[in-house]
Amino acid sequence: MKLLFVILDGLGDRPVSELNGFTPLEAAYTPNMDKFSELGMNGLMDVISPGVTPGSDTAHLALFGVDPFKFYTGRGPFEAAGVGLKVKEGDVAFRVNFATIDNSGVIIDRRAGRIHEHTKELAELLNGLEIDDVQIIFKEGTEHRAALVLRGEGLSDCVRGNDPKKEGKKPYPFKALNEDSSSKRTAEVLTKFVEKAQRLLANSDVNIERKRKNLLPANYLLVRGAGKVPKLPNFEKEFGLKSACIAGGGLYKGVGRLLNMTVIEKEGITGGFDTNLKLKFSTAREALKDYDFVFVHVKATDNYSHDGNAKGKKNFIEKIDVELEQFLPDNTNDLVVMIAGDHSTPCVFKDHSADPVPLLIYSPSCRKDDVKRFGERYSYKGIIGRIYGKDLMNVLLNELQLIKKFGA
Amino acid sequence: MKLLFVILDGLGDRPVSELNGFTPLEAAYTPNMDKFSELGMNGLMDVISPGVTPGSDTAHLALFGVDPFKFYTGRGPFEAAGVGLKVKEGDVAFRVNFATIDNSGVIIDRRAGRIHEHTKELAELLNGLEIDDVQIIFKEGTEHRAALVLRGEGLSDCVRGNDPKKEGKKPYPFKALNEDSSSKRTAEVLTKFVEKAQRLLANSDVNIERKRKNLLPANYLLVRGAGKVPKLPNFEKEFGLKSACIAGGGLYKGVGRLLNMTVIEKEGITGGFDTNLKLKFSTAREALKDYDFVFVHVKATDNYSHDGNAKGKKNFIEKIDVELEQFLPDNTNDLVVMIAGDHSTPCVFKDHSADPVPLLIYSPSCRKDDVKRFGERYSYKGIIGRIYGKDLMNVLLNELQLIKKFGA
Repeated sequence: MKLLFVILDGLGDRPVSELNGFTPLEAAYTPNMDKFSELGMNGLMDVISPGVTPGSDTAHLALFGVDPFKFYTGRGPFEAAGVGLKVKEGDVAFRVNFATIDNSGVIIDRRAGRIHEHTKELAELLNGLEIDDVQIIFKEGTEHRAALVLRGEGLSDCVRGNDPKKEGKKPYPFKALNEDSSSKRTAEVLTKFVEKAQRLLANSDVNIERKRKNLLPANYLLVRGAGKVPKLPNFEKEFGLKSACIAGGGLYKGVGRLLNMTVIEKEGITGGFDTNLKLKFSTAREALKDYDFVFVHVKATDNYSHDGNAKGKKNFIEKIDVELEQFLPDNTNDLVVMIAGDHSTPCVFKDHSADPVPLLIYSPSCRKDDVKRFGERYSYKGIIGRIYGKDLMNVLLNELQLIKKFGA
Repeated sequence: MKLLFVILDGLGDRPVSELNGFTPLEAAYTPNMDKFSELGMNGLMDVISPGVTPGSDTAHLALFGVDPFKFYTGRGPFEAAGVGLKVKEGDVAFRVNFATIDNSGVIIDRRAGRIHEHTKELAELLNGLEIDDVQIIFKEGTEHRAALVLRGEGLSDCVRGNDPKKEGKKPYPFKALNEDSSSKRTAEVLTKFVEKAQRLLANSDVNIERKRKNLLPANYLLVRGAGKVPKLPNFEKEFGLKSACIAGGGLYKGVGRLLNMTVIEKEGITGGFDTNLKLKFSTAREALKDYDFVFVHVKATDNYSHDGNAKGKKNFIEKIDVELEQFLPDNTNDLVVMIAGDHSTPCVFKDHSADPVPLLIYSPSCRKDDVKRFGERYSYKGIIGRIYGKDLMNVLLNELQLIKKFGA
């Protein structure tokens, strides 16, 4: 028995008037997901707990059975692992944006004109620097994104970054969030690094060329999401499942890597609207031959929500549904299929909410309930009822007949 | 967005044969609550946890997001704050009944003929006494009720009171419940105080007059509910909501005060059958202009249950329903409405039970479910399913779009 673990980011939603009071998932024509609902078990899931709005990082930890209250230190480590940096326990990691700052020190664009070329060259200027005996490890991500890792003695993640999250403002000074020497040292190192980076970026060939082309230069670094790399459980060993992760977004690949899943990357699998869904799911199909557990993450559902684009979300869900046909029980045997959101992102809010997410679990021998469609207001009537994200992996292991007895 | 938080005390019930097997809430004609159910989300709530019967005090702490296992020390502090005593952290507080004792020391009436006049004069005889360097703070409540606060060094709430809870018995001696010196000292102070009070009350003008009128004298104090005043969270700050409390019963006003809500008191708003419901809810309507969060407590539903009067409870619920019309979405915008019980008090038991309470939550953008009526056996079919009281405030903050993200 193998397990296909599908997370549609920000899937959960609320009624939308332009969809006649349905949610995007309810409104979408999803014959394949509906088939899984019909043959499987349905419910709602509080990924963290009722009334708690999950971030994407804490949500995924919880879904993989890792207690975020115990293990979560910040988003940086996952972003760094996501771009492929080999982080070590104790490293302090950050998310970074290449940004544009003007001569007076005001941020013009937090994304440097959504730069998407030659960031590798920029990153190479910064990677390998050393400041006050701290090693700077720096790597570009997708578009304007990058990751920064500080490696050395006496560092802390109790620092506030320099990103004011708004344009037209000056960057914040880095700030130690408590009084200990390691917080202060980390803030100092970051300050020196960003100053040095500013000089190096200003004079870079890439930026001279961008200015020539009238593009905004990537002349500044906005740093946030400090987190000390935690010692995370080994997902494969913990659950005894040879595990693969297929995701476009850096964060999700990072979570997979830090939990010791094998991340399968292919050109065209992105975290955006443009991701090649056909390739993503055929890669999953292929991976199920070699792996017991295949995590497939689709990000764009959440992106549509953040844009408030309910129809776009509905249409994208329909595209995902098409790719799920190949996993129907008619086509494959001995496969457990789980489909859920990592959190809700109602289009009416354009942001995460604490609404529980729709959840379906299909296995050949499961207690099929009366629910026949996948959607927030169909799912809640199912036999799963309302569970916590932290319990999901155990529930799935039960379907895989791999759960251990407690007691005798 | 503002929040109307309505608690109908002891609302939850069980099927009653004289109501054709319906519960009082199910049997009641409640078009307005039903409208909220139809437009909102429904479920059941374990105020503490499944199978745990809440007291009114612990229930309200849980409903306001305050862990009673951590903060609850006894009922006394809330009763004392409820009658308007300014209690301080470390005070030891008690509930008191004015009672009638005969010459042989046997309790004739635990409520002194339900005395309801001139208890203020009696309280003034006792307030301000000092015993063994302990300051006695004493204030009358409604009818036969009063509150006692001991303020001084080396006091404890590990003492058993003197109330045997039955008539025809002698009062219990106060008893230290553990071996430390503060428990013993507290029991001694209480013993001396009640003896002194007995002498002062016997010779009071009020009791001489009562005897003349053939009324039972209020010549004794029954003391119970010891609790050291805890340091409670500041509800307003915790949730960022300017908060008002509208209640008749002392306990509920006390909980509101100790959590830093503004208690709005008006002549006619009582904790009894006679409470002016029209005034109570119009006061709430008015308060919603100035406050983000308005807690309305109605006690009499519970009183009917304790009397085993299911028809009375049903009729009273119908009266409450009339007053809720003004909060319907047709009449007001941007209002989140929550209606629930604090615990169940089945008329067939005449006492609290652990049955989960019916819960409805309406907000303009919520995931309206298929439930169309408010009642134990309608509500459980709703999208809320079954939640814990401790999660209620977070679930409501989510509807108010005020919930903070955990993670990024």
